[in-house]
This record gives sequence, structure tokens and C-alpha cells, in this order.
Amino acid sequence: MINTDICIIGAGPVGLFAVFEAGLLKMRCHLIDVLPQVGGQLSEIYPHKPIYDIPGYPSITAQELIDKQLEQIKPFDPTFTLGERVEHITKQDDGSFIVETNDHTMVHTQVIVIAGGLGCFEPRKPEIPNLHLFEGKGVDYMVKDPAKYRDKKIVIAGGGDSALDWTFHLADIAQQVTLIHRSDSFRGAPDSAEKVFKLAQQGKINLLLSHNLTNIHGNDYLSHVETTNKEKEVIATDADYFIPLYGLTPKLGPIADWGLNIDKNAIEVNTFDYSTNIERIYAIGDINTYPGKLKLILCGYHEAALMCQSAFKFVYPDQKLTFKYTTVNGINTF
Amino acid sequence: MINTDICIIGAGPVGLFAVFEAGLLKMRCHLIDVLPQVGGQLSEIYPHKPIYDIPGYPSITAQELIDKQLEQIKPFDPTFTLGERVEHITKQDDGSFIVETNDHTMVHTQVIVIAGGLGCFEPRKPEIPNLHLFEGKGVDYMVKDPAKYRDKKIVIAGGGDSALDWTFHLADIAQQVTLIHRSDSFRGAPDSAEKVFKLAQQGKINLLLSHNLTNIHGNDYLSHVETTNKEKEVIATDADYFIPLYGLTPKLGPIADWGLNIDKNAIEVNTFDYSTNIERIYAIGDINTYPGKLKLILCGYHEAALMCQSAFKFVYPDQKLTFKYTTVNGINTF
Repeated sequence: MINTDICIIGAGPVGLFAVFEAGLLKMRCHLIDVLPQVGGQLSEIYPHKPIYDIPGYPSITAQELIDKQLEQIKPFDPTFTLGERVEHITKQDDGSFIVETNDHTMVHTQVIVIAGGLGCFEPRKPEIPNLHLFEGKGVDYMVKDPAKYRDKKIVIAGGGDSALDWTFHLADIAQQVTLIHRSDSFRGAPDSAEKVFKLAQQGKINLLLSHNLTNIHGNDYLSHVETTNKEKEVIATDADYFIPLYGLTPKLGPIADWGLNIDKNAIEVNTFDYSTNIERIYAIGDINTYPGKLKLILCGYHEAALMCQSAFKFVYPDQKLTFKYTTVNGINTF
Repeated sequence: MINTDICIIGAGPVGLFAVFEAGLLKMRCHLIDVLPQVGGQLSEIYPHKPIYDIPGYPSITAQELIDKQLEQIKPFDPTFTLGERVEHITKQDDGSFIVETNDHTMVHTQVIVIAGGLGCFEPRKPEIPNLHLFEGKGVDYMVKDPAKYRDKKIVIAGGGDSALDWTFHLADIAQQVTLIHRSDSFRGAPDSAEKVFKLAQQGKINLLLSHNLTNIHGNDYLSHVETTNKEKEVIATDADYFIPLYGLTPKLGPIADWGLNIDKNAIEVNTFDYSTNIERIYAIGDINTYPGKLKLILCGYHEAALMCQSAFKFVYPDQKLTFKYTTVNGINTF
């Protein structure tokens, strides 16, 4: 059993900043995230994109911001459980909680802070009959390790940036890459689309535009992907792997079942301390809602600061909180 | 008459960030500050002190933060009136305001944002009978231009960092520097105190410890400063300039007379949009108050962002506000 003062669900920028504010008040944090690395959607979805609205950074890429924040919280030595999803929380008689993940990691904590961003990102799946038969047997919804596809026949479906980016990235690795898209133009960045068109002209990839995905087939393992073209002809493309990249949909996941007041997939909080309707549970960042809410990272930072002032009373019930500026006192670590 | 969308009173970090958030929504800003430079107390009082709680900056000096923020708002080309204090605001029939400074600069604006920090900083004055007679005639409450004191006889009073820092800085410039302090130890940084003690031992400054300041004298112009020592002896020290450095006290100033709801020197706002009780007037940063308020720069950033969403309707009454992320759209300047 891991013991901590504050268990933070979600290791994105706001969850990470909560560690800093908690640290100033001598509260230890343990963070749990379903993703295999810290950084939330910044590291997972747009690590190289510049962000322009972090105060004091005219421009910073998402991953750089996460790296800076990790450096900032280093003195407070947070602990992490990554790649696991929190499934259950159980209130103890003394008011504290036991938090349990899908891998049965157990955390005993005085306070829970949900900093879950837009929730767990789950892949949008194409609606074709045999899809579920080949999950884990040739169907992948994310590219985690490109090396897996070396010298294989790959079919990618989609028209956005992920589909385009992975098409030209895997073109160098795989034996054959086919990109299927229902339209004849792409939603992704124009220069990515241009690269893909060029690869197709050079015969380096197989581009099936204006094709509808209809089904996938195989025996025990996937063998081919079936599409129909404009002329309603059925076309089968050989495939060791089929990778539909239709984007990720955020889902609240198990959090929805904990008795929190939820409004449109967000947790209702007050703006005094960003507490939820359940004592000792707070929600900060994109996952919460209140009148005037803006889903900005910088707003989550503010929420983290106010939350910590309130959480302090549950961690140190006998102490009076004195507010000190870092310019005056610096950072006193543990 | 200067014309603008938003007139921001106070050019500290929060006022500057408001320019950025306003700029994203195509609103122009004019800033007015009583100090002769931007940056508020960060530039005026502690430019070289490191700040540790700006999210994404493990450590940044106050002046560096201001410089970064100026770079961040450059695309939005804000305009400034510095070294002037806003005295009056007058509501126009169409809901807009005319803002007037003590130097009669006039600004026509749709919205007023008070980002005045702790207010106007005014020097704490020693309580001695003749002080007012020599203001501008040898009594200075701030060192603005050290060169003014070259080859002059200077008496400094105080026991904090400013008194210590200016004592050893002016020791090289002035003909003679005397430091008067009522105690025999200093409140300022220990290594600054040590430097001052060393200068006194070397005979480079004149140190009067455990001295009470009793009065100042002169004819038309200041000529000497009078103190009493522990033994109640009266001592006169020749002085071309007397510089009491007893710190700065924040005062709300004329803002207190505008009909705003004030609680303990702070302007009451709601947390939906940080608006005051007067329509089209907002207050953000250290100058406002609401349940849970923390006087942190990072909280002012959040307040600036929410304020702009609300101010938009007064600047563009016919337009619908659409919220866009900078990661998606970048910054579109004017």
C-alpha cells in the first residue's frame, strides 16, 4: 500500500503543478495516470506543438512545458503510478481514502485531487462488423512502437494528422503501407497531405481515396481489409495490421460512478477551493466546471493553488496555515 | 485623447498578461501606471529576486518575468502612459469611460481593468516636525538617480534592505554617507549588514546605531539631521540630502473614491468574470478580493483570462465570442 497526503489522478500540467503548490505546504503527492508517461495530452497528443498562452512564455512546446514543470516539482519528490487507471475509491472511517487501480495498485491518501483533463482518451472506432474479432490480432488503435510494423503489410484508415503522419513515417519501415480515406481530401495539415500525395505518386504507398471501409477479414489473425470505391466495387487489401486512426474521444471513465456531481462530462466544483460535492475530493483543470470556466492550462494552475490551501486542513488538521511568498522564503523542501 | 478598447490601470505582471488575453480576442489595450516603468512592484521593489512559483519556471527573477511578458504581448502592440496616476473616471452616455490622470492625459475606453497590485506605493515617512519643510529641498524618499548625490553629504535612515543597499552603493559616489538606525542590528539581509559594518570599520561610512531620529534643520535648504543616542545626547550630522528609507506603504489612492465596493483595501469582485459592482469595470490581481483569494501572480493570470471573455461583449456588442486554443490557431495579431 502506497501512503500519501494527496493522491492526484492525472499527471498532466495541472496535476503536476498541484505537486508544487502542495509541496510548498509540506504535503506529499502521489500521481496516477492511465497514460504510460507524465504530461497528459500535452505529451501524448501534441508534444511538438507550440503553446502561446502560458504566462511568461511567448512560445513553448507542450513537451518543453512538461519538462520544465517536472524540474520545478523535483524538490518535492512526487511518486507516480503510470499506465494504470483508477477504478475504485473507498472512504475510510477516519475520512481518508483508499484508491485502487485496474492493476490493483492501492494508495492510502488523505485527499483526492482529480486532475484528469478531458478524461481517459479512448480511440474512436470504425463501425465495421468484424472489428472486435481482430483486436489484439492485427487491429491497433494507436502506434506505440513503430518497430513492430517492420516489413509488415499495414493498412491505415483516416484523414487527419495522425493518419497522415503515421503513413509517411511507417512508409520507411513497413513492407507496404496503404492509406484508406473516405474522402478525396484530407483534414490534416496541408503540407502533410502533400507529402502523402507525393509518396503515392512515387509508388511508395498505396492511397485509396473515396473508399468506404466496409469490413476486415482473416482466420485466427487479420489477413485483409475490405473497402468499396466510388463505383461500389469491393476491394480487398492484404494487411498484417489494420490501424484505424479516427482520433481519440475523451471519456470520464470510472470517475463517473463515484457519486460526484457531473455536468456535461465535467465535475462540478465551487470557485472557493475547487472542491467537489464529496468532502476531501477536489477537481482541477479541464475536468471541472463552474460558472465562467475556461479550459486553459493557466486556469488549472490557479485552481491547483487554491485547492491546496483548502486541502491542507485535512492533511494537517492541527496546524494553522500560514501563507508565505516564494520570493521571501524560497522553497523549503521535505 | 487616447482611444482604446480596454484601459488597464497598473502595468505589473497581471496587467501585462491581460494585454495578451485581450489581444487573442482582438481587443486593444492602453496601460497606465504611476511608476516610471512597467513591471509594477516586480521591477520597482524586487527586480533581482527569484520567484519560484510561476508555473513552468523552476526559478525566474522578477525582472526576467516582466521582460518575458513584454515579449509575449509585443504582437498586440499595447500603448502606455507611465509615471502618471489615474485620478478620475467619468462614465459616458454610451457606457464607455473617460479616464484622466494627474497629468491630464485623457483616455477614452470601453472597459476599465484595475490591475493595480497593492495600490500606489507611497513611502513611509518618519514622524519628525520639520520633515515637510524640506521635501524637495534635501529630503528624498527614493533614490531615483544616484548621480544626483555625487560629492554630496548624504544621511540615510532605516534598517532594511533598501537602507543597507543604498548605503554601500552611495558610499562610492557621495562625499560622505551616514546611516542612522534606531537599533544596533539590521532587518536587511545578513550579508548586506556585514558589508555595511565593514565599511564603517574602514571609516568609509559613518554609522549611527541605536540613534533616534528627532528632527531635521536648515534655512531654505536642508543643512543637518538631528539624532539622539542612547545617552540622550543630541547629535547633529551635516546633510545636503536626507533619505529616509522606511519602506513603501501601498495605498489604494483615488480608486477608493470611484464607488467600487471595497473590503480591507481590496476591490470586491465575483469569480465568474472578476467584474466589480460597476458595469464595465473589472479588478484583477492583488487589488481584488473574493472568497478564497490568494495574492499570487499566477492567480491574477487566471483572472485576466476570464475577465477578457466577459469584457468582449462591451467591446464587440454585435459579435459572438468563439473560444480558440493557441495551439490550434496560433496568435493572430492585429
